[in-house]
Amino acid sequence: MDTIISVDAMGGDRGPEAVVEGVSRAAASSPGIHFLIHGDSEVLNECLRRHRRLGDRCTVRHSEAVVSMSERPSQAVRHGKGSSMWAAVDSVKRGDASAVVSCGNTGALMAISLLLLKKAPGIHRPAIACLWPSYNEHGFNILLDVGADIKADEEDLFKYGLLGAAYAKTGLGVAYPRVGLLNVGTESFKGRSEIQAADKLMDQRQFDGEYSYVGFVEGSDIPSNRVDVIVTDGFTGNIVIKSVEGAASLIRAFLKDAFRHTMLSRLGGVFAITSIRRLFKRIDPRRANGGVFLGLNGTVVKSHGSADPIAVEAAIEFAGKLAKSHVTSGVVTELSSKGQRTGTASIEPGANTA
Amino acid sequence: MDTIISVDAMGGDRGPEAVVEGVSRAAASSPGIHFLIHGDSEVLNECLRRHRRLGDRCTVRHSEAVVSMSERPSQAVRHGKGSSMWAAVDSVKRGDASAVVSCGNTGALMAISLLLLKKAPGIHRPAIACLWPSYNEHGFNILLDVGADIKADEEDLFKYGLLGAAYAKTGLGVAYPRVGLLNVGTESFKGRSEIQAADKLMDQRQFDGEYSYVGFVEGSDIPSNRVDVIVTDGFTGNIVIKSVEGAASLIRAFLKDAFRHTMLSRLGGVFAITSIRRLFKRIDPRRANGGVFLGLNGTVVKSHGSADPIAVEAAIEFAGKLAKSHVTSGVVTELSSKGQRTGTASIEPGANTA
Repeated sequence: MDTIISVDAMGGDRGPEAVVEGVSRAAASSPGIHFLIHGDSEVLNECLRRHRRLGDRCTVRHSEAVVSMSERPSQAVRHGKGSSMWAAVDSVKRGDASAVVSCGNTGALMAISLLLLKKAPGIHRPAIACLWPSYNEHGFNILLDVGADIKADEEDLFKYGLLGAAYAKTGLGVAYPRVGLLNVGTESFKGRSEIQAADKLMDQRQFDGEYSYVGFVEGSDIPSNRVDVIVTDGFTGNIVIKSVEGAASLIRAFLKDAFRHTMLSRLGGVFAITSIRRLFKRIDPRRANGGVFLGLNGTVVKSHGSADPIAVEAAIEFAGKLAKSHVTSGVVTELSSKGQRTGTASIEPGANTA
Repeated sequence: MDTIISVDAMGGDRGPEAVVEGVSRAAASSPGIHFLIHGDSEVLNECLRRHRRLGDRCTVRHSEAVVSMSERPSQAVRHGKGSSMWAAVDSVKRGDASAVVSCGNTGALMAISLLLLKKAPGIHRPAIACLWPSYNEHGFNILLDVGADIKADEEDLFKYGLLGAAYAKTGLGVAYPRVGLLNVGTESFKGRSEIQAADKLMDQRQFDGEYSYVGFVEGSDIPSNRVDVIVTDGFTGNIVIKSVEGAASLIRAFLKDAFRHTMLSRLGGVFAITSIRRLFKRIDPRRANGGVFLGLNGTVVKSHGSADPIAVEAAIEFAGKLAKSHVTSGVVTELSSKGQRTGTASIEPGANTA
């Protein structure tokens, strides 16, 4: 049976054309997926005419309104019914789709998802988790929260640790996840009061012996193999992912420069072109696009607002893998059963991307 | 006349050997510098025997104690007299040296510097600024605070903007610096309350018309040419620089992988070796080592705690350039005269590094 992915086509910075083109790319690279696309049907059908290969793999659901990027979450909840975002999330609630992808307003998407899908048992504050390329053998570490909420107290940080560890088990197949708490240093007296308190909480409870707490980690440890899950508040996490994206783009520009510098380096570039392309893919933030909301009864993937078709494709593929391996329900079961493993599958964003 | 740089040789993670080797490298690459090296004279003289080229360019000043990495700033201030860090900073206070470099405990270095060198007029809280490779024509943007204090209220953030802009003028030669405030989004309602308040403050005062405030910027804007100075609190700034260092190291590892992948890519690597080496230098965090303390009456450069000799060399060169072009006093004059430019020189960390 096909996996059905619900897509909010209207919220992104580049408009529905980019989203539909991303869906078309994902349809080509992921055969077993059907799409429910939400938005202005006239606009969407016009876009779809340019992507005939989508053919009967795609159903358009009309919605009148759009949640804008500048809308506050509270506004979106009060007035968002009738928007493509609301309808896209509602498809998951009704069981019409296994996961939803949106490039829209993060705060609004979280607020609408909370309202419609509800928090999983025992979760006070859901988090957005992203996969971070790492030296670990499974290839990725998990960083959370990367933007669900700008504030987190010690109890929230502790719960993020639980959510992240459950995700590492069910999503990456890590048997005994190691959790670290992001701080400005590893000495016990470093950091803000809530981080100090979270450190004590994580250390005392040790996640009931199912996950290990490695203590404070620094920014340079995020891709390290000291740890599988890195916990931080959504303000810091969001700034970290965007800063690293910006730096990776700068390094790509430097790399291009380097291979244009002399005749010899141009020649070297020609010989090494396949390797350079592979490298560019590995460090292309678009291909690791997609943060998953953890702690909800349903799979919601937030794509970058400025996602181009390649990035939209990556987010959809990621959502497809999460849906197929039941990661979200796995996380919920993992948390409620406190430790029973419910399914192990390897989830990598964009790993199949052409 | 030689520029004299005072060096705390004892505080780093790699011990005095690495620091002395870094001094020796800096001596070779920067002819006009003399060094005052502080620490255990027996150990230091032993190290110096292996670096004969340092010869008469170096004076050892004995100190008994060492400020450890785990010491709290308050302890360092109470009990630090007699330590190499204290003596190294004191050399600047007494006018024996133009700048001090330490790889030691950041908090202790700031506390001792505050006590001995005092804050510049009008500065409530000094900041640590670092130069960040960017798309701007001067090649660098300024990010601050990267770790002087984990908290910053709106008034602190506003002052960081002033300090950063004065540094951009005197250090990078930017006539009309553009200042941005780091946040999780550019919409006006985004971010924590102190960031909201700082946004209003910067917008209202517009830095008295001498610098321009561009509003909120995101992590991906740090290397952009939208802005010259990026303001954030020391917690976020410290985590951002370390996260980007970690990511850059991972990308270097990927790059090495890419050129080992096939026979053809190995061959390409041979042709492009000079370009690849140049690229590696450009993205090597060690070569941009050194954060400068802004808002003090004296030049203090904090090197990475785990600095190896290449990184120590970069920090010393950076301190030498700051000292030669009187950037610190330029920043102080710039702030007190509210806008009169007092000297323009191009400061790039490690730009002369071999």
